[in-house]
Amino acid sequence: MAVTRLGRNPMYQQIADALRQQITSGKLEPDAKLPTEAELREQYGVSRETVRKSLAQLVNEGLIISARPQGHFVRRRKPMVFRPQAEFRKRPFSPEMDAFMTEYSAEGREPRQEIEVAIVEPPEEVAKRLRLEPGDLVAVRKRVRYLDGEPFNINDSYYPLTLVRDSEIMRPEDIARGANEVLAELGYRQVRALDELYIRMPTPEQVHRLDLSPGTPVGLHVLTGYTTEGKPVRVAMTVLPGDRHVISYERQREAPNEDA
Amino acid sequence: MAVTRLGRNPMYQQIADALRQQITSGKLEPDAKLPTEAELREQYGVSRETVRKSLAQLVNEGLIISARPQGHFVRRRKPMVFRPQAEFRKRPFSPEMDAFMTEYSAEGREPRQEIEVAIVEPPEEVAKRLRLEPGDLVAVRKRVRYLDGEPFNINDSYYPLTLVRDSEIMRPEDIARGANEVLAELGYRQVRALDELYIRMPTPEQVHRLDLSPGTPVGLHVLTGYTTEGKPVRVAMTVLPGDRHVISYERQREAPNEDA
Repeated sequence: MAVTRLGRNPMYQQIADALRQQITSGKLEPDAKLPTEAELREQYGVSRETVRKSLAQLVNEGLIISARPQGHFVRRRKPMVFRPQAEFRKRPFSPEMDAFMTEYSAEGREPRQEIEVAIVEPPEEVAKRLRLEPGDLVAVRKRVRYLDGEPFNINDSYYPLTLVRDSEIMRPEDIARGANEVLAELGYRQVRALDELYIRMPTPEQVHRLDLSPGTPVGLHVLTGYTTEGKPVRVAMTVLPGDRHVISYERQREAPNEDA
Repeated sequence: MAVTRLGRNPMYQQIADALRQQITSGKLEPDAKLPTEAELREQYGVSRETVRKSLAQLVNEGLIISARPQGHFVRRRKPMVFRPQAEFRKRPFSPEMDAFMTEYSAEGREPRQEIEVAIVEPPEEVAKRLRLEPGDLVAVRKRVRYLDGEPFNINDSYYPLTLVRDSEIMRPEDIARGANEVLAELGYRQVRALDELYIRMPTPEQVHRLDLSPGTPVGLHVLTGYTTEGKPVRVAMTVLPGDRHVISYERQREAPNEDA
């Protein structure tokens, strides 16, 4: 029986490296079953403990999932495109983005969302971005978006209460023309936005609400929308599980030599 | 002695929740020392094992670091702003971005980079984006960027070898006017770019090259640069440790009612 020998790193690492290589090269495809622990022990001539350490490493990297008692499987990544620019421009500028969206879009999957509305004291990070005074309240629309029944992301949008009180934004229903249009009708059209993106491990609450597997980091997208006068009128916080999203932007050079 | 009682979740979770709350609210500031294991045991009336589970949870979330034997400390986040738009437009459009950059920029820290150049067979994901034929080679400039001696990010830029052979891009040195300008002089000015951002756990190689602590996810930024004719001439892959970066974009509404 041939025992595969690899390199100088600890054995469990070498085995993880070899399996990772098979996954990233596509030799082991999404949903493929990995060799069993017994098979790996035989192939590499190592202990059960070493094999388990290798597999745990790949689970932590988010490359495989453990589905006892069936075994380990290559994690399928079917990312949804999250495209913040769609807010100001529905259609992509460029043929490249068009092609990218077509390749990655979650076509044919059934969207659904749950909406809750509340009046709350703003979290510190929201108050700061909306430049609120102590005691000012905000309206928040909390949404969980699902695709085919799977939770995809959490979106919490905050508005200064004084701006949106008595508007449609306060109703826990989908707004067909969009909350931005409601804000515009109220006299607060957003013409600029600042996007911040943070990369984090999820909190236990996020693990629970988004049904995250171990080793799944999240992106936290914080959007602040401004009127022509530079008044911040909305902060939207979106939690994007790393295994379900690719975030994408397209950019164009503004004018020749602008980058000089 | 008062024993703090919290709620219905498992005790270790409740303790982690309470500590997390103190960290995110700023009551426990960056670099602050957490109560010792003994203090937490006494405060909550729980076993050493329970306390350790709480602390491990927060280490995994990347909120605290364990520095034995001194104890646990709140992780300091001094993120660097990663602003892909700077490539096409050095100066921000908006006062908001200006203010944001000033607040977050890594002012006064000493930058340094290591550059390596190689001719390689392109990784699958690069070949696809550059629309290369089997057998086509690429030149790659691999950079590790440091601030104050700490590795900040890894940037690997790939160019079709046929375009850049014999150019400055092949020299392992900083190019003062930028590699993009060299490409433009060669007849391949990039006028559009597509950005993709993936959120991942790091590979062991990335952990090693970037000196990452446990529980640190990374962003993988994949940039494809195109000429006016839509020819892809560059793919740049940047690995951004989540504890050291905030990725930021500014956006403007294109024309009134464009979002209709």
